[in-house]
Amino acid sequence: MPFFYNTDGRLIQVDSALQAVSRGSTTIGLKTKEFAVLSSQVRPTRALLDAAEKIFVVDDHLGATGSGYIGDVNTLVDEVRVAAQRHRLVYDTPIDVTTLSRGLSQFLHAFTMHPVRPFGASVILAGADELGVHLVQVDPSGTTFRGQGFAIGKDADPALEAISQGYRPDLTVEEALALMTRAIEGANGGKSQIEHGVVRLATRKFERLPLAT
Amino acid sequence: MPFFYNTDGRLIQVDSALQAVSRGSTTIGLKTKEFAVLSSQVRPTRALLDAAEKIFVVDDHLGATGSGYIGDVNTLVDEVRVAAQRHRLVYDTPIDVTTLSRGLSQFLHAFTMHPVRPFGASVILAGADELGVHLVQVDPSGTTFRGQGFAIGKDADPALEAISQGYRPDLTVEEALALMTRAIEGANGGKSQIEHGVVRLATRKFERLPLAT
Amino acid sequence: MPFFYNTDGRLIQVDSALQAVSRGSTTIGLKTKEFAVLSSQVRPTRALLDAAEKIFVVDDHLGATGSGYIGDVNTLVDEVRVAAQRHRLVYDTPIDVTTLSRGLSQFLHAFTMHPVRPFGASVILAGADELGVHLVQVDPSGTTFRGQGFAIGKDADPALEAISQGYRPDLTVEEALALMTRAIEGANGGKSQIEHGVVRLATRKFERLPLAT
Amino acid sequence: MPFFYNTDGRLIQVDSALQAVSRGSTTIGLKTKEFAVLSSQVRPTRALLDAAEKIFVVDDHLGATGSGYIGDVNTLVDEVRVAAQRHRLVYDTPIDVTTLSRGLSQFLHAFTMHPVRPFGASVILAGADELGVHLVQVDPSGTTFRGQGFAIGKDADPALEAISQGYRPDLTVEEALALMTRAIEGANGGKSQIEHGVVRLATRKFERLPLAT
Amino acid sequence: MPFFYNTDGRLIQVDSALQAVSRGSTTIGLKTKEFAVLSSQVRPTRALLDAAEKIFVVDDHLGATGSGYIGDVNTLVDEVRVAAQRHRLVYDTPIDVTTLSRGLSQFLHAFTMHPVRPFGASVILAGADELGVHLVQVDPSGTTFRGQGFAIGKDADPALEAISQGYRPDLTVEEALALMTRAIEGANGGKSQIEHGVVRLATRKFERLPLAT
Amino acid sequence: MPFFYNTDGRLIQVDSALQAVSRGSTTIGLKTKEFAVLSSQVRPTRALLDAAEKIFVVDDHLGATGSGYIGDVNTLVDEVRVAAQRHRLVYDTPIDVTTLSRGLSQFLHAFTMHPVRPFGASVILAGADELGVHLVQVDPSGTTFRGQGFAIGKDADPALEAISQGYRPDLTVEEALALMTRAIEGANGGKSQIEHGVVRLATRKFERLPLAT
Amino acid sequence: MPFFYNTDGRLIQVDSALQAVSRGSTTIGLKTKEFAVLSSQVRPTRALLDAAEKIFVVDDHLGATGSGYIGDVNTLVDEVRVAAQRHRLVYDTPIDVTTLSRGLSQFLHAFTMHPVRPFGASVILAGADELGVHLVQVDPSGTTFRGQGFAIGKDADPALEAISQGYRPDLTVEEALALMTRAIEGANGGKSQIEHGVVRLATRKFERLPLAT
Repeated sequence: MPFFYNTDGRLIQVDSALQAVSRGSTTIGLKTKEFAVLSSQVRPTRALLDAAEKIFVVDDHLGATGSGYIGDVNTLVDEVRVAAQRHRLVYDTPIDVTTLSRGLSQFLHAFTMHPVRPFGASVILAGADELGVHLVQVDPSGTTFRGQGFAIGKDADPALEAISQGYRPDLTVEEALALMTRAIEGANGGKSQIEHGVVRLATRKFERLPLAT
Repeated sequence: MPFFYNTDGRLIQVDSALQAVSRGSTTIGLKTKEFAVLSSQVRPTRALLDAAEKIFVVDDHLGATGSGYIGDVNTLVDEVRVAAQRHRLVYDTPIDVTTLSRGLSQFLHAFTMHPVRPFGASVILAGADELGVHLVQVDPSGTTFRGQGFAIGKDADPALEAISQGYRPDLTVEEALALMTRAIEGANGGKSQIEHGVVRLATRKFERLPLAT
Repeated sequence: MPFFYNTDGRLIQVDSALQAVSRGSTTIGLKTKEFAVLSSQVRPTRALLDAAEKIFVVDDHLGATGSGYIGDVNTLVDEVRVAAQRHRLVYDTPIDVTTLSRGLSQFLHAFTMHPVRPFGASVILAGADELGVHLVQVDPSGTTFRGQGFAIGKDADPALEAISQGYRPDLTVEEALALMTRAIEGANGGKSQIEHGVVRLATRKFERLPLAT
Repeated sequence: MPFFYNTDGRLIQVDSALQAVSRGSTTIGLKTKEFAVLSSQVRPTRALLDAAEKIFVVDDHLGATGSGYIGDVNTLVDEVRVAAQRHRLVYDTPIDVTTLSRGLSQFLHAFTMHPVRPFGASVILAGADELGVHLVQVDPSGTTFRGQGFAIGKDADPALEAISQGYRPDLTVEEALALMTRAIEGANGGKSQIEHGVVRLATRKFERLPLAT
Repeated sequence: MPFFYNTDGRLIQVDSALQAVSRGSTTIGLKTKEFAVLSSQVRPTRALLDAAEKIFVVDDHLGATGSGYIGDVNTLVDEVRVAAQRHRLVYDTPIDVTTLSRGLSQFLHAFTMHPVRPFGASVILAGADELGVHLVQVDPSGTTFRGQGFAIGKDADPALEAISQGYRPDLTVEEALALMTRAIEGANGGKSQIEHGVVRLATRKFERLPLAT
Repeated sequence: MPFFYNTDGRLIQVDSALQAVSRGSTTIGLKTKEFAVLSSQVRPTRALLDAAEKIFVVDDHLGATGSGYIGDVNTLVDEVRVAAQRHRLVYDTPIDVTTLSRGLSQFLHAFTMHPVRPFGASVILAGADELGVHLVQVDPSGTTFRGQGFAIGKDADPALEAISQGYRPDLTVEEALALMTRAIEGANGGKSQIEHGVVRLATRKFERLPLAT
Repeated sequence: MPFFYNTDGRLIQVDSALQAVSRGSTTIGLKTKEFAVLSSQVRPTRALLDAAEKIFVVDDHLGATGSGYIGDVNTLVDEVRVAAQRHRLVYDTPIDVTTLSRGLSQFLHAFTMHPVRPFGASVILAGADELGVHLVQVDPSGTTFRGQGFAIGKDADPALEAISQGYRPDLTVEEALALMTRAIEGANGGKSQIEHGVVRLATRKFERLPLAT
């Protein structure tokens, strides 16, 4: 059995890693000119267990969320946190989102070239810098997507469909959060616990929002 | 046969490692605001054999227990003990539980990325620091869980069910120990030898309790 | 199963990598004595997603495009960008296209000799230097082609056929762009979003053109 | 075929190594508060062949025996001998039994984590230090057992059964040796050549006893 | 499946590499006492594509051609070019052909001994030095042949047959070129585009000749 | 197929190496308190071929013989020769036989632990030092045997049987040589060419004896 | 499939390498007290191809020939040539034949121990030093043979038979060359082109003889 490509020229381990992502919790990102929002379903857990953190502060102006193997998501979040701090130390300025996502992309890509495994996680980054508000999705293959809205994890397709339907460039943060909630609950078919994060162009601050049920 | 992912995108060796954990002795952790308790069944052994240590002091304010391959549990406990001492040497303060569990999580995760085997053991950490009482479970994949109660090893599900039923935020240590004993004995279907450990917010000391039969 | 050659003496992983290229978006390069043009179909994407960058500025006088795995294309573009900057630092002159493409060729070839995977991407470079206008295609095997016109990716054959039919050495840039658009749309069987880039001998500047639908 | 875990989550090479141990010669350890005894059957060998050494002096206060592949047993005994001497050199005191057995355990465990083979041998250590008399068994997986009595090798179960039956905390050394001999001969079904070693708390000296038939 | 030898004692990867060579373009070398000529069919290519360079200047007095995987041929030509320049730097004299071909032979041989792949290319070197005119063929196994005439690539056998028939030690360069052209066209069954190179003892200069159709 | 252990816990490569030994030429060692003798059948060879050296002088007081793959035997003999000389250089005394055989044993054992092959040869060492006369056999697994008599190679069992029958502690060297010759010829079923070596306690000199037919 | 030993304890790659040798050209060595001769059939080659060098001068007093993969033979000859020159540099004397052949033997043996391939070539060395005339054959396994006559390559058995029949210790060089020629031609069934080399005790010079048909 081939380790890298199958006979159709597909990277079989990357495809498996994407399968792992598609089993993760439903996770959405959305942005307008003024702000970006990250939302991730907190999977209904058993009693006595704290909900897992799904929205991560990377730096003052930057947040992340992810879906897939939790250990993989956490490792990638650590990776970008360290990159952001290193940038501050070296250049004494906050890292811009494009530089950060490119570094993450190269990190992920390297794991597809050698006889190790690619990460089983996709990450969505949201940030605000001098160039405006950014929303970026990075996949196990190291591919980077940019846009106004992304959905990853379980039932990503209906969730994205819902966002696309409700999207307007002049959404307020509150409207956006309501839209995200509807999209996740619609995809999952019921009331869900959801964690949100938001970054605004005006403040360039990324904040995690209190858990809403 | 693939080494890392199967075609469903599952990490096959991590799944095997979790199987190894599920054959270990029934082990429980529980916490309230005031204290955390660790309890682990000491498997009925043959004559002349000392019961294996199941509750480990990691540092003054921190204890651990685990389930799975004994050699793997011990190696992980050594790992966190050294990390705790290194922290004292470098910063001259006790390590906080979050930093310690994150390090353990990264250590375990690294073994899932390369052509070695993941550890066949899960660990529960209990500690008290300036932020309060902590109870954390770390799995072979490097995933970290936080909460009021965990069960790992054989018959973890009925044991956790029993704890959930009897849990109250105002439990005393004595009530908690009785609850843990009932949970383990209920799961195993009979009287068991159980080792306990407890850490209190008031004292920030982790103590192993004398073996109770 | 052999890792490198099959019994017919074909490099099986290189053939798989070429398969990956043939699934990429239709991408064309064309040059005359006066200019070179790169054009790449921007695949119809879902709502809210920004079109991926398909035409890359490598240096003032040099551009690139590619087809295949996006992470692989990006890594190769980064590779040539760094090579171009390194050349400027060391020699204080812009890198000539032949030196750059030879370096890329050697980089790709090295990945066919050892137990890693070859890149799943072909790249077309367009540039202008003291020797005139250059158009070069580099394949996963490290093979370099030079000429007046190339097509890679999905439906490369009909696209190349269309270009060959319409090619004249005295094409203007505008005529060339119209020809490229017809070739891509003809191959894909309908109106497409296409990104273009152009470099002229007169100015030795490579520019990305605004997205035309 | 998997190299580390099988689908039940068992470490297949460790299980094979334990099989190798179970084919070794019957070997027993036993301790009271006052002394510890090691006994190992010297397998009936062919004419002209000296009986293999089965009881090893590790340091003045410490002895070892083992069962399994002879080359593996010898390598492990060398390992602990060197550790004991290194301890004397560095700290100028005899090594305590717990430190020594923990080091052996870590050494064995490391061979279960990487693509080499685990040792096909179990070792029993007997020693006396400031904390009293110690009897420790270490397995190919790096698991350490402590207790009053152990049996490894062929027919370990009936041999251990015999010891358990005859064990009293107030055994004299002579009674213990007689018990060990009965246990080994009972398990093997006949008169055996047995090598013994003994360490007493009073003297903290480990001695090999003359071969008894 | 064995990686190196099959049960008949043949090096299976070298045989595969030779298969790759036998699919390359028909390529011939011929020498007399006064000169050596290299000729290689330039395969009929599609419109707009420049013919690939088939005759390579290695140093003033030395040229090369090759057949097989293009990336492999180019890498080998780079290898000998660097060796020739290094020799000039170290000894301040042009490298003699025997030293150069021996180095190439060792380079190729090393790739047959370890778990990488042998090169899928044969090379013919032509040069003139103090010892006269040299013509050398080096194969993927590192075997070196010396002689008056060689043919490699597709239809090498009939091409060599044709050369052998027409060879005379007193051929002029022009007669030799005509003979080579007839040999390639005869083997391929029709008019071909052919690239030639020539080195003369009198001048010790290797020159590529303008492409003749 | 497993590389190290089979499911019965046997080291499969070591077993294969022992098979290789059992195809070697019949080789015997024997000792009394006063001397040790090594004897090895020199296999009937074809005309014009010198008989291979079968008895090796390791140091003044030490000799060796072996059976199995000749290249492996020679490598092991070189190994002990170098060890003996190194000992003289460092300590300025001849190496004692126990130290030498332990080193050989460790050397052989290391090749059973990693993904290389164990040596396909057993070695018998004979020497005289301050502790008396020594006869040691070392196997591919690194196992060391000590005793009055050993036989390895083809028909080792009947040869050993013959020695055991004829052995007396008060044998003279001449009687011992006659016994060894009878044992080898009896096992092989006919007159054989045999090479002998002898070391005496009185002289502490190991000598090869002239070839006897 | 096992990489090193098969279940009969044979080194499967060494056996394959010997198969490769047995396909090489018929090659013979023969010595008397006064001289040694090496002879190797130069295989009938196609027109225009120079006969390959089959007899190699290693040093003034030393020559070699070989059979098997040509690239392997050449690499081994280079190996001994460098060893001979290194010896001259370090000790300022010509290397003796025994030291040289032992080094070659160790070099070849090392390639049988690790996951690379053994060399597919046997070598015959002929030399004269202070100890007389030497004739040595070294095989892919690193086994060294010494004697009056050897044959390797295709039809080695009948060729050796012919030499054995005609051998006399008082042969002259001319008689020996005639015998070698008859042996090779008899084995191959017809007139052959043969290359010879000779070294005499009187002169201690190894010379290649002009090609005889």
